[in-house]
Amino acid sequence: MKRRSLIREEIRKLAAYVPGEQPKGERLLKLNTNENPYPPAPGVARAIRAEIGACLRLYPDPVSARFRERVGKALGFACDQVIAGNGSDDLLMMCLRAFAGEGDLVQFPWPSYSLYPVLAHIQSARVRRVPFGARYELRVDAFDPRAALTFVANPNAPSGTSVSAAFLRRLARRLKGVLVVDEAYADFARENALALARSEPNVLVSRSLSKSFSLAGMRLGFAMGSRDLVAALFKVKDSYNLDRLAQAAGEAAFADLAWHRRCTRRIVRTRERFRAALERRGWDVLPSEANFVFVRPPSGDAEGWFSALRKRGILVRWFSSEETRERLRITVGTDAEMRTVLRAVDAVAGGD
Amino acid sequence: MKRRSLIREEIRKLAAYVPGEQPKGERLLKLNTNENPYPPAPGVARAIRAEIGACLRLYPDPVSARFRERVGKALGFACDQVIAGNGSDDLLMMCLRAFAGEGDLVQFPWPSYSLYPVLAHIQSARVRRVPFGARYELRVDAFDPRAALTFVANPNAPSGTSVSAAFLRRLARRLKGVLVVDEAYADFARENALALARSEPNVLVSRSLSKSFSLAGMRLGFAMGSRDLVAALFKVKDSYNLDRLAQAAGEAAFADLAWHRRCTRRIVRTRERFRAALERRGWDVLPSEANFVFVRPPSGDAEGWFSALRKRGILVRWFSSEETRERLRITVGTDAEMRTVLRAVDAVAGGD
Repeated sequence: MKRRSLIREEIRKLAAYVPGEQPKGERLLKLNTNENPYPPAPGVARAIRAEIGACLRLYPDPVSARFRERVGKALGFACDQVIAGNGSDDLLMMCLRAFAGEGDLVQFPWPSYSLYPVLAHIQSARVRRVPFGARYELRVDAFDPRAALTFVANPNAPSGTSVSAAFLRRLARRLKGVLVVDEAYADFARENALALARSEPNVLVSRSLSKSFSLAGMRLGFAMGSRDLVAALFKVKDSYNLDRLAQAAGEAAFADLAWHRRCTRRIVRTRERFRAALERRGWDVLPSEANFVFVRPPSGDAEGWFSALRKRGILVRWFSSEETRERLRITVGTDAEMRTVLRAVDAVAGGD
Repeated sequence: MKRRSLIREEIRKLAAYVPGEQPKGERLLKLNTNENPYPPAPGVARAIRAEIGACLRLYPDPVSARFRERVGKALGFACDQVIAGNGSDDLLMMCLRAFAGEGDLVQFPWPSYSLYPVLAHIQSARVRRVPFGARYELRVDAFDPRAALTFVANPNAPSGTSVSAAFLRRLARRLKGVLVVDEAYADFARENALALARSEPNVLVSRSLSKSFSLAGMRLGFAMGSRDLVAALFKVKDSYNLDRLAQAAGEAAFADLAWHRRCTRRIVRTRERFRAALERRGWDVLPSEANFVFVRPPSGDAEGWFSALRKRGILVRWFSSEETRERLRITVGTDAEMRTVLRAVDAVAGGD
């Protein structure tokens, strides 16, 4: 008896999401996946150490209550308006499961986080890409009001650009479905959508501890918004989605917001210095509110620059698609690291 | 403008999975969620400590390569036949996404792990429960050969009973879709389906480190089978589903299989002593191949026994549904802990 394919057609056709390279062995200055150059708050390691031991044999708190309380207190939400995830990717997938069924419309500005279309395809949802303007502007009326789910990464990746909170409010009110503002980079920006998530019943904000809290290695994210939306996410989450050490790490990270503020401010200052230095060299730098810049070398040959920098031990990110192929995304590291990048830029430009 | 509901109808109707109680504060002998009474191998804490520090700021290996290599070497699979998950629940959800679309048939014996129907409903799949016999026997011809996905927990929970590897082979050959043998408890059993996962193109075996490796607090699981099925799971997994500490813990746990063997053997011996002791007291104990027993008190009043034991500081699990309400599921702890249970049983029976 001939078997039908064991694997769903959507999945057979699916090109999986490709994460940025995690180089092994080679010593590279790694500026390709928007990691934070500074270590996490010292209390994080202490909290993890305190949690190791015999109690690893016991299940964690399935709802990460203490972590969510800390987050809620810091950001002005009640505990039942906050849900924790195994990285914010986990939360984005939960949003798909809870808000968009097979055939429903999922939309997002484009180019943006390339995981959105992958998640939508997994869920067999219909995908609509809302094109950005040439300088990454957005128009509210370019969005379809009937979409079941709209993602807006703000600041956006890979561009680093932002739309205003006022824009997001107009958008939220236009939409019949759920608006998820993906604020993975918002701690580096001037505005955020937290007030919107408090007031609008159809808005969720998702956050990550990977970037501004220096915890990419831990997989910690959370989402905030109306009780109804959060309750729906709770229904579709993995029963125990955060392990004991991650919960302890998240709590400790939020217990030291002064450390967090110091590191993010430092990165913003470095970003602005780096932007100015590249502009002096004739590079086009999109206005960034994130911990990276999206830049066009004078020649537009970003792929050539990617290779030239890599030969000099500097790993940045180049996206090959039509809309992005003339730019590089460069993570903002320390001042010293960015000086290294500028020296390499000068050496390559000088034909060294 | 009136909004349609923001939340998918399936999710609004869904009763979420209810994990066993994680008591706080109270000092209870906790025998309700099948945790291991022994600590994880000593190398696990060392490996986690070595991983803490500045490198938490960097993303983990997205494919958990070193952990999967360890697992593959230990159990006889190539690295690309193994995928790691954030607990085996993560893997079960991936199976739904990869193998069963909206309206496809998902079947499993019943009563079994109550997460299966929840996952199927989230995916809008059709659910078919294959009824167990009175002593938890199964018949191959009770399964629908056309199901896109079949879960068999073996040993089964909450019964603790098993079907043979030969039975599973007949079942796999009858099915046109994928068979996932959920072996969360297989390390306590005499047989397993690893040979089947090596030879049959439609079989996956999923495992957990929560029970036999004493790592419920870490969320670590893995699945093994044909390259095609595993490749499909890779497409739908979260990009970074295991954090750095979990990967280090998993590697260390598989580096000390002698510790694992000692702990599991001890639990099996305790289980058999406990079974015999309950049988001497007139309790019906289903033959268990897991780290728990599913038992009927002479009166059949399992709910009353649940409360009586709880009053004496012993927390076990009672499932209120029709098929299970006359039994208690009791996790096998240490010999000393099970003697405490027996003393409580005698005290309650004596009207103490």
